[in-house]
Formats: sequence, structure tokens, C-alpha cells
Amino acid sequence: MFVHTVNSDTSLKLFEIRDADALFRLTDASRAYLREWLPWVDGTRTAEDSRMFIQLTLEQFASNNGFQSGIWWKGQLVGGIGFHNIDWSNRKTSIGYWIGQGFQGNGIMTSATRALVDVAFDYYGLNRVEIRAAKENHRSRAIPERLGFLNEGCVRQAEWLYDHFVDHVIYGMVSAEWTT
Amino acid sequence: MFVHTVNSDTSLKLFEIRDADALFRLTDASRAYLREWLPWVDGTRTAEDSRMFIQLTLEQFASNNGFQSGIWWKGQLVGGIGFHNIDWSNRKTSIGYWIGQGFQGNGIMTSATRALVDVAFDYYGLNRVEIRAAKENHRSRAIPERLGFLNEGCVRQAEWLYDHFVDHVIYGMVSAEWTT
Amino acid sequence: MFVHTVNSDTSLKLFEIRDADALFRLTDASRAYLREWLPWVDGTRTAEDSRMFIQLTLEQFASNNGFQSGIWWKGQLVGGIGFHNIDWSNRKTSIGYWIGQGFQGNGIMTSATRALVDVAFDYYGLNRVEIRAAKENHRSRAIPERLGFLNEGCVRQAEWLYDHFVDHVIYGMVSAEWTT
Amino acid sequence: MFVHTVNSDTSLKLFEIRDADALFRLTDASRAYLREWLPWVDGTRTAEDSRMFIQLTLEQFASNNGFQSGIWWKGQLVGGIGFHNIDWSNRKTSIGYWIGQGFQGNGIMTSATRALVDVAFDYYGLNRVEIRAAKENHRSRAIPERLGFLNEGCVRQAEWLYDHFVDHVIYGMVSAEWTT
Amino acid sequence: MFVHTVNSDTSLKLFEIRDADALFRLTDASRAYLREWLPWVDGTRTAEDSRMFIQLTLEQFASNNGFQSGIWWKGQLVGGIGFHNIDWSNRKTSIGYWIGQGFQGNGIMTSATRALVDVAFDYYGLNRVEIRAAKENHRSRAIPERLGFLNEGCVRQAEWLYDHFVDHVIYGMVSAEWTT
Amino acid sequence: MFVHTVNSDTSLKLFEIRDADALFRLTDASRAYLREWLPWVDGTRTAEDSRMFIQLTLEQFASNNGFQSGIWWKGQLVGGIGFHNIDWSNRKTSIGYWIGQGFQGNGIMTSATRALVDVAFDYYGLNRVEIRAAKENHRSRAIPERLGFLNEGCVRQAEWLYDHFVDHVIYGMVSAEWTT
Repeated sequence: MFVHTVNSDTSLKLFEIRDADALFRLTDASRAYLREWLPWVDGTRTAEDSRMFIQLTLEQFASNNGFQSGIWWKGQLVGGIGFHNIDWSNRKTSIGYWIGQGFQGNGIMTSATRALVDVAFDYYGLNRVEIRAAKENHRSRAIPERLGFLNEGCVRQAEWLYDHFVDHVIYGMVSAEWTT
Repeated sequence: MFVHTVNSDTSLKLFEIRDADALFRLTDASRAYLREWLPWVDGTRTAEDSRMFIQLTLEQFASNNGFQSGIWWKGQLVGGIGFHNIDWSNRKTSIGYWIGQGFQGNGIMTSATRALVDVAFDYYGLNRVEIRAAKENHRSRAIPERLGFLNEGCVRQAEWLYDHFVDHVIYGMVSAEWTT
Repeated sequence: MFVHTVNSDTSLKLFEIRDADALFRLTDASRAYLREWLPWVDGTRTAEDSRMFIQLTLEQFASNNGFQSGIWWKGQLVGGIGFHNIDWSNRKTSIGYWIGQGFQGNGIMTSATRALVDVAFDYYGLNRVEIRAAKENHRSRAIPERLGFLNEGCVRQAEWLYDHFVDHVIYGMVSAEWTT
Repeated sequence: MFVHTVNSDTSLKLFEIRDADALFRLTDASRAYLREWLPWVDGTRTAEDSRMFIQLTLEQFASNNGFQSGIWWKGQLVGGIGFHNIDWSNRKTSIGYWIGQGFQGNGIMTSATRALVDVAFDYYGLNRVEIRAAKENHRSRAIPERLGFLNEGCVRQAEWLYDHFVDHVIYGMVSAEWTT
Repeated sequence: MFVHTVNSDTSLKLFEIRDADALFRLTDASRAYLREWLPWVDGTRTAEDSRMFIQLTLEQFASNNGFQSGIWWKGQLVGGIGFHNIDWSNRKTSIGYWIGQGFQGNGIMTSATRALVDVAFDYYGLNRVEIRAAKENHRSRAIPERLGFLNEGCVRQAEWLYDHFVDHVIYGMVSAEWTT
Repeated sequence: MFVHTVNSDTSLKLFEIRDADALFRLTDASRAYLREWLPWVDGTRTAEDSRMFIQLTLEQFASNNGFQSGIWWKGQLVGGIGFHNIDWSNRKTSIGYWIGQGFQGNGIMTSATRALVDVAFDYYGLNRVEIRAAKENHRSRAIPERLGFLNEGCVRQAEWLYDHFVDHVIYGMVSAEWTT
């Protein structure tokens, strides 16, 4: 019901319990594609798992610790984007995103991410936004690079993906450098 | 950040902690006017009280029990509207609303209420919406009457307003009768 | 152990965990009869369901929000009666009751209800007591009518009973009008 | 409201929040007398302290762990008696009691204690009841002795009373030996 | 990781989740032996039960209410010892211990208990330590007797062991009498 | 009471409530020195603040999320070291440490950190340990550098220190490269 308009085709909506089925179907339809870079795919076996995830994100929102929203494109749920958490003391946050198979190449993720960075700086008044991507995940890395984030380093073996570790490149943007 | 557009001038936004100051100032500026019919005005002594209220509404939203949103008109917070709770078993809810002094007569409340009734029936799939207003509060009663709600009765001494009881007229609308 | 004596045959006792079996047996023995007007019957499949209900009522009592008690007649558990909640700010409450099949016609329910209304006004010092009954449930409606409650209106489609909605008639009594 | 009748003059009633003032006044009126053997007297400075105590006892009752009740004699609150806890696994409990100054010598405490031991064995089906009293508190020790409890030993420096330790005599009664 | 050295062969370590398997195997290997005097053996059916027990002990430690530690001898987990709780107001505690089959006779339990009594008096500054043992459990009773505890009495039918009650002898030691 | 021995002079002990006074005095004695790089110093105004911190660390330990320990050198509390959290899914953790004024140059911090890295890899079986230090905090950076950690990058404006942001250098060590 509550919408953040990104552009005429794209909007972000806080996940609500009613989105559990749509979220599950989207995940289920892109399993092999998504699990290459996302650790939560195998554990999402039924709509109940998606519902429990959404419940957690609602509690995250209620505790003023950021939020997770669905990305809606042309009226359809195509992915998710949100803040992992908000560190108010240090005025910083970290953004994560994903998009279902077949929806890449439409600029959806870049504009959704740009919109969320705007929210971080302008709406929440934060100072720093971070985006991490696996070193080999070039598609994901292209997003912060396209938005002007600085490559600040590479954290080795930062994440366990089912059966192997991946390194994470850290991209950072500070408020003073962000041009809306 | 997340907005429900009512019309070109009016939108609803879930209350967030950052709205505490604006909410307090609005309340404080209309004290005498608001306290005629609202029991929470005297207890709102500082922005901290408004913040605590907003925190409660966030927890209400996170527990899938409805929400409270600010009414924004021409970029300014002018009032509040929300669901007191959602009774999913019986598929019904109850709406409450208020507007600051000086903003009446612009049709803001009627359109905001209509929008919320749409959300109750179309978005949440509920069957019944109720609106209660003090018998002598003709301004408030005009809203459901204008929207076609049925006057279902009058509950005596339903509410304590600082130093006296008031009766509540009950207005009800069922899904089958609602014309968007 | 703790008893509220209604008359020489009838008393009310706060539900305790030890009553779970008796409560279940009573429910189970009157299923078809009770489910005509009570929504919780089908969900009470084992004594564990009754035990969980009793646990909730104990927590209700411990949070100063009213209580649920068993109605004991001639040493046997025959029904239940209690306050749905207590709204201390507005000094009002709402009473619900039921009786097992075969125990009607003995005046048990009327005297139990009268006793609870006395508790509401004299013991808790409340100002208003409400009783709602489905429009077609004439047996239940007879109780508040017999006790002098005022018919204040009819709320349409107020409750979902397994496969259909029912309207609720609202009966109200205020302290000033109550004659013990 | 819910009463356990001990005899025509004496009854026990679960403490409820509304009893806070009466409980405080009784405590306050017997300070010097009560503090000789009770550790909680000095900490009961206002009715709020009594209210918080009562809230704890309500939660104890709601968690099926025994209860605390007021002793009412000739319509007046004169003391308190209850189970410290109930150990269901080992089917045992421990009783504590006190009476305000000026009410001794009427047999109130002995009959209230006898009533509670009956509740422990008959109502809760427990196997053992224990009563502990400071070695020098002869008045308190007389109660279990009068009721036929066995002196099972003396625990040294069992309790800290403001500025010194006291030893506790342990009295025990088992179900098989209890004559109602 | 954190160790309390008793002697060159023996040390105590706070139970951590990682100890669940070792604790379960030790319990499982001594079932018949342990269940003669310990009530929790039958309920320990899998390592998950041991894990849940450890979780409870961690929460006990975190709430400043004593702790449970494993007894490690020559690098192997051989038993458990800890404080049932700490009564800070009355500055007293109670110790419980057990050892797996085949490890008796090495003085392990006596030195571990001595170490824990030292902790109670010197580290926590308590005034009284109690040890209870079933009247017929002579092995267990030998520990406090060896350490100079006083036999303060016998509580009848204090504990239910699967199918019968046992009496408990109470041994007490006060700080002034303890010689390290 | 529970100790992790680093060397003959140095040991680590889980913070317990009883350490609150010692921790506060140590903090208070080095205020100007510590606040150059630590954000929590100004907020530690009384021993109660230290006590509340310790309570949080106990809950962290109880939830299997790492721990915070005091560094004891020659019998005196000289600093603190611990895991910020443990990410079990990704088998990684992050270490933080500080030492009071006047205790530097004794090799205490390097050996304490080495000991904790050993615990992370050998005891907890983790795969990665991270240490972050402000870019200008050369003393702190020397510790991971001395221990062979790799400089993986620099996160800009990562932390707010009272009135300015500082950048953080990220040092990482993986299990395969760690030589005990």
C-alpha cells in the first residue's frame, strides 16, 4: 500500500505479510540463477519461509533499523532491496539488493539503488552508504560502480555460499560526494 | 519515505520516528481545538510523547495489526489517520482520524478516509469498516455520513474525555456496499 | 480454589490449568449446540487447546485486564463467563458467556451475569458494561434484556461464524442505572 | 472478588492491584512489629511498592507457580499467606505467612495456614508442604507445630534480616500424614 | 576456553554450546549409574537435550545467578558441578555435582567441590553454602562430610526420582567456619 | 573466576558484574587517553554505566555470540578485549581491544590479541578474523600488522568519534594463514 516511486515503471514497497506468496514464487522461479550469489535461496523452501523473512523485516522496520522493500516493475514484484541495518551512532548503513532472473538489463536495479541511496542521505540524513558484492559478481559490482561509489578494498573469504567462501569488494559513498 | 497518494495535494505516510517533532508541533499548535474530542492531547506534553506514540504504531504495523499514518497536504503534516486494529478472524477494522486546526473545509479528511476504506476493502480484503464519533461531534460524523456509512446505533458513555463521558455513534460499511 | 458465590447452587471460579480437562469435556459434549453461536468450538480439538485457552486467561488476569471464570452449578462445571477486557481509561468492559447443552432454563446464566455486572460496577468501579449477542441468538439476547440493559443498536456482519457473518445487537448498561 | 472461605470470620483472597493501598496501610501500621521477622518491610515505602509486589504475585499465579493471598478477617485485611512457589516435578511447596500487629491470638493464622495446607494436598495434589521460621520466632514456629508438622532440622544463617543472620527451623508435612 | 584450575589434573570450565556432544556422550555412557540419584537422566535422550540444558545454564550465568561448569580431568569431561542459584539478598547458595561412572575414587569430586566452595566464599563473598544429598546416597554425602559441612537435618520426601521419593540430608557451611 | 591464561603475567577473564567498579576506575583514570580513539568513554560516567556494559556482554556470551573479557596483568585489570560478535553462518568474527594509559609497551595487547585469534580459529573453529583500526591510530594498527594480518582496504568515515569521522583500515586473517 505504501509506495516509494522510483520512476514511472518502478516503485519500492515495504514488504508486508500479504507479499509472502509473490515473494516465494519469484524466488522459486529463479532458484538456480539466484543461488549463485545469494545464501538464503536454498533455505526458502515454502511460502512460509518467505513469510517468516517478511515478519523479520517488519520488526527491523519497527525498531528503526532500516527496512526491506520489494521492487515492483510494471506492476510485478521483480526483486528486493533494503538496508541491512542502520548504525545511527556512526550515521551509516549498508544496502543489499537482488533481482529475479529475466529482469536484468532494464536498469531497474540501478535506479532502485539510486533511490535508496537518496533515501539514506536525504531522508534519513546518514553520512555513509556501503555496498558489498562478491569479487566475481560483476553484475552486482557494476551497480555501485555506475553510481560513483569508491572501491575501498576487498575483504577475503567474507561470505560462505553453500560450499565455498567468496571475497567481498567494499564500495563506499559519503554524503558530501553524492549527487542526486 | 513510503507514500500512499490520495490525490495531487494529499498523501498518507506511515509514521516514522523522524516525524515525532512535526507531529508534536502540529498537536501543540491545535491543543484547545483538538482536546475537545481527542483524549490523548493533554498527555502529549513533549516530542518524546509523540515519539513514544509513533514507536507503538510501528509495532502495531509490524504485528500485522493495521497502521497509523500522517496525513500530508501540500507537503505539510496536517493530521493523522489509521486503523485502530485489524480483526482478521472477523475480517473487520475500525478507522480513527483527526486534523489540526485550520485545515478543515478542504476535503482533506474525507478523501483521506475514503482512501483508507479503499485500502481496508481492496488491499487488505476486509469485509467491514467501522467509524465511531462522539454524538455531538458533528464535524467528525459528517465524514462517514458523506461516505455512505450506515448509522448503526449509539453506544452510551463510551469514552471518557478528561472530565466527562461522551456517547459514540457507530457507523458501519460492508464490502458489498462500498463503491470506490 | 477461589470462589465467587452467586447463590447456593452457583459459583464462579477463575479458570486454572487444572480445569483444562473438565473444560474440554464440557465443550466436547455440547459441540453441535455450542458451535451454533460460538466461533471457538471447532478449534478446541483436545484438552491441550482448552489448556492453552486457560493459560491465556490467566495472563489476562495477571495483566489486570479482566478474567474468565468457569460457572459451577451443583458442583459441576457448566459454562464460562468473563470480561473480554477492561478499558480502565474509559471505565468500561464487555461480558461474554456460554453454557453447555442441557443446563439452560435453570436461571444459571442470568444470575451469573448479574453477579458479574455487580463485580464490574461495585468491585472494579467501572461505569459501563456492554453485552453483544448475535441478532438471531434470542436465548443470549434474553439475558441482558432481562437484566434491564438498553438495546443500543445493531452492528452489521460483526462476526464470522465458520462460514457466514452474523450481526451483533449491542446492549449497554451504565452504573447510574444499575440496580443490584 | 474470588474468595476462599476459611471460616465465618476469615477468608483468603488472591491479591489484586486494587488491594495495594490496603496492603500498604496494613504494612505501614505495623512496621516495627513486622520488621522483626520480615525482610521486606523496610523496602515497602509507598503503596507503589505494595502494588509492584502484587503485580509479581499475579504473574506468579498466572505461571501456575502458586499464589499469594490476603487474609481477610471480619471484612478487614489483616495479613498475607501464600505459596513461595510450587515445585510440580517434586510435588512440593513451601508456605509463608504474616499478620499485622494486634491481630494475633485470634487463631486467624493457624486456620488460614490449615486452609492453605488443605489446598496444597487436596486441591493441588501435592505430596509435601514445608514451613520455615526463624529459630527465635516462637510465634511463627507455633503454627506448624500446632498443625502437626515435623521439625526436620535447622538451617544456619539462612536469612539476612537487615543487619544480622537468622537460622531457620524447617518443618515438613507429607500428604500421607495430613489429617484435614 | 575459560578455565578454573582445581589442580594439575582437574579444571572446571563453564559449559558452552560446543560441549553439548561431549556432555551427552558422558551422560549416555553412564545412564544406569547416573539415574540412580539424578532425575534428569531419562529426559536426556539426545545431544539436543544437553544443548538445551547448556543454553539454560548460560542464561543462568548471564543473569548473575551462578553457573554450571563441566569437570575436566586429564583433558576429558567427567562430570558437572555448579551453583543451583545465588541468593544475593541472603548471601547464600547451594551446590550440586555429579560424576560419570568409572571416575570415582580419584578425589576429583572432593577437590572440585572444595574449589567451588572457595569460589562461593572468596570470589562471590557469600556467607553460606548448602549441599543436599539423598539420605541413601552415601557416596554423595561423603563429599560435604569430608569437607567439614554440618549435617543440619533431613527433609522428608524432598525429591521425586522417576517412581519414588527420597529424603534429603541438608549439609551447611558458613563462611566463618570455612578453612581453605 | 574463569581464566584464560595468556602467559605468566597475563590472563583474560570474562567480565562479570563484580568487575564493574574496577572497570570504571580503569576507564576513569585514562579518560583523555582513551577517548582519543574510543567512542564509549564519555558515556561512561559512573560505575553503573560499566555495570550495564558488563550485563550486555554477559547476554552476548549467553547467546553464543562471542564475549568480552578483561585483560589482567600482574593481578590488575589493565584493559579489555573481545569479539564484537560471531557470524557462525559465515564463520567469521571481529576483534576489538583497548588498554589503559601507562600499560602500553609491555607487549600485553599483542599477546592478548594473539590469544584471542587462537581462540577464534582453534576453539571456535572460525575461518576469518578481522581487526579494524582508525587510519591514524598507529598504535592499534601495529597489533594486527605485527600478527601478520593483511591490510585489505580502508573504509572511509566509518566511525563517529564525538565530533569527527575517522576512516577504518580493515585487517583480515584467514585460518589457513594463521600460525599459532
